[in-house]
Amino acid sequence: MKLATLKDGSRYGHLVLVASDLSRVVSARSIARTLQEALEQWVKNEPRLRARSDALNADQIDGSIQFTANACAAPLPRAYHWVDGSAFLNHGDLMQLAFASEPIPDFETIPLVYQGGSDDFLGPVDDAPFPSEADGIDFEGEYGVITDDVPMGVSVDQAARFIRLVVQLNDWSLRVHGQREVKTGFGFYQAKPATSFAPIAVTPDELGSSWHEGRVHLPLNVELNDEHFGNPNGSEMRFSFPELISHAARTSRLRAGTIVGSGTVSNVARDAGSACIAERRAIELIDQGSIKTPFMKFGDTVRMRAGAPEGPWPFGEIAQRVVPLDA
Amino acid sequence: MKLATLKDGSRYGHLVLVASDLSRVVSARSIARTLQEALEQWVKNEPRLRARSDALNADQIDGSIQFTANACAAPLPRAYHWVDGSAFLNHGDLMQLAFASEPIPDFETIPLVYQGGSDDFLGPVDDAPFPSEADGIDFEGEYGVITDDVPMGVSVDQAARFIRLVVQLNDWSLRVHGQREVKTGFGFYQAKPATSFAPIAVTPDELGSSWHEGRVHLPLNVELNDEHFGNPNGSEMRFSFPELISHAARTSRLRAGTIVGSGTVSNVARDAGSACIAERRAIELIDQGSIKTPFMKFGDTVRMRAGAPEGPWPFGEIAQRVVPLDA
Repeated sequence: MKLATLKDGSRYGHLVLVASDLSRVVSARSIARTLQEALEQWVKNEPRLRARSDALNADQIDGSIQFTANACAAPLPRAYHWVDGSAFLNHGDLMQLAFASEPIPDFETIPLVYQGGSDDFLGPVDDAPFPSEADGIDFEGEYGVITDDVPMGVSVDQAARFIRLVVQLNDWSLRVHGQREVKTGFGFYQAKPATSFAPIAVTPDELGSSWHEGRVHLPLNVELNDEHFGNPNGSEMRFSFPELISHAARTSRLRAGTIVGSGTVSNVARDAGSACIAERRAIELIDQGSIKTPFMKFGDTVRMRAGAPEGPWPFGEIAQRVVPLDA
Repeated sequence: MKLATLKDGSRYGHLVLVASDLSRVVSARSIARTLQEALEQWVKNEPRLRARSDALNADQIDGSIQFTANACAAPLPRAYHWVDGSAFLNHGDLMQLAFASEPIPDFETIPLVYQGGSDDFLGPVDDAPFPSEADGIDFEGEYGVITDDVPMGVSVDQAARFIRLVVQLNDWSLRVHGQREVKTGFGFYQAKPATSFAPIAVTPDELGSSWHEGRVHLPLNVELNDEHFGNPNGSEMRFSFPELISHAARTSRLRAGTIVGSGTVSNVARDAGSACIAERRAIELIDQGSIKTPFMKFGDTVRMRAGAPEGPWPFGEIAQRVVPLDA
């Protein structure tokens, strides 16, 4: 089952079901007004959503309209909880090797996560406004999951069953702020402006054999200014989503609609490229002795699609342009 | 004007107005179902809420019921954005002096903030469940504000006008996790379980002369197991709430219902005591050479009231007991 949220001029958006081939969408408002509402009573809502989705896919429903990414907000236009991991340890290894930063304690054994801002997500093709090119504007291609209510202290084994949806996202990062904030110990804040999401949230079954061991086994194709930048695969995630959820629920229960991110997708093989500029810069420094790739400028674009380059793309695509705040 | 949210068995709660003397409450649902909804259209809702509040205070309204803290959730039972500062620099100075930690860069000039979890706040007299006494269970008495929509890049001068409500809160902290997490650079996550709030959110005018220069000039009386622990005054906040808001909105706009915290209230004068155990332990180590006060055990209680010891307490009071998760 594929779900999306259409922009409707409100802060909430309009929940829709999306056909498997991304051709059509149909309102799901008769079942739940928003995706947040759908998640808050998932056990009750899921069968009704699936029935309507099946009817849409069988072309047995009235009122469907054409799907366009332009019409979409993030699947959850805002959320009460957004916790992002850094579960591809290759990414961390490269950053540490390149920039000779202090080793992070317990890096290999305890998942590294940060609490993200979640009141104002960007849609898949929304322009991304930033105050200054000097901030080190970077994208981060990631996968994520959305949970049901999760009890405090949940085990890794139990955590998988609280995963309701899988998403794809761009965790915009401002590296200059990040360098300063990481040194305070208090973590990222100004370094992490509004995160963007691909238009479609899918139930795990929708990914077929690409979803197993709590990971998305799909390449994430990233293009910077319409040129290939990388296509690392989600399979190399060291900590699985159930492991991240169990870590996140160690001292708090998580409430329905919690989004848990993987961190930048990253592979050991150099020919996979990267899903963020900072990692490519680290590789350039390690392999070639100097940094060649600049961070983004106003007018630059980034595109991210999971799956085969020619499709299908189960989450749709992210295609954004960086713009100055005043524009 | 005083607002609160009554528990009603849902995730949302029921918005009420509270009489100035905290004697009675009356539903505000005819104006807005929840405080979040009220904030999202504050300019439209505020005059109607004030008219109903005035009628309540003049005893000219039907359907009011007695106020009890037991019936209250946090004013916002959950929020889309919770950013907590560490704006009482005396607290940071003491921690650094006692534990010889690395100096935090730009500590005196750039506000230190962390992004908090916001999907599951505790009410003022809710038990606080934790998995282990070994985690270093501690309270942190703070003030906070709730904002309207704030544009990205707002100046300090402009920020004050986006403050809609003032709150009092207990930012529960697990110090053992905090010590580990601060070293990762990614900031607090397991160290910051669900935050608790005093029952009443007030408009700034309700605080009279105690609200000026963007600070709450009131002592915060803290009792641990019914014994005086401290009564530091909010006046020594180095960065004001407008300064914290301007910092928070540097690279993102803030959406209505954003909660901005002061960090642990802390005063230079030793006889003010402390609003968290960690600070008292730091003072013990500095002044007496050894730590005497343990962190909290299951069954311990904490009480926090802003204002004169005998009242009135504009935010009501926080009175919580620490309990094991399994209970």
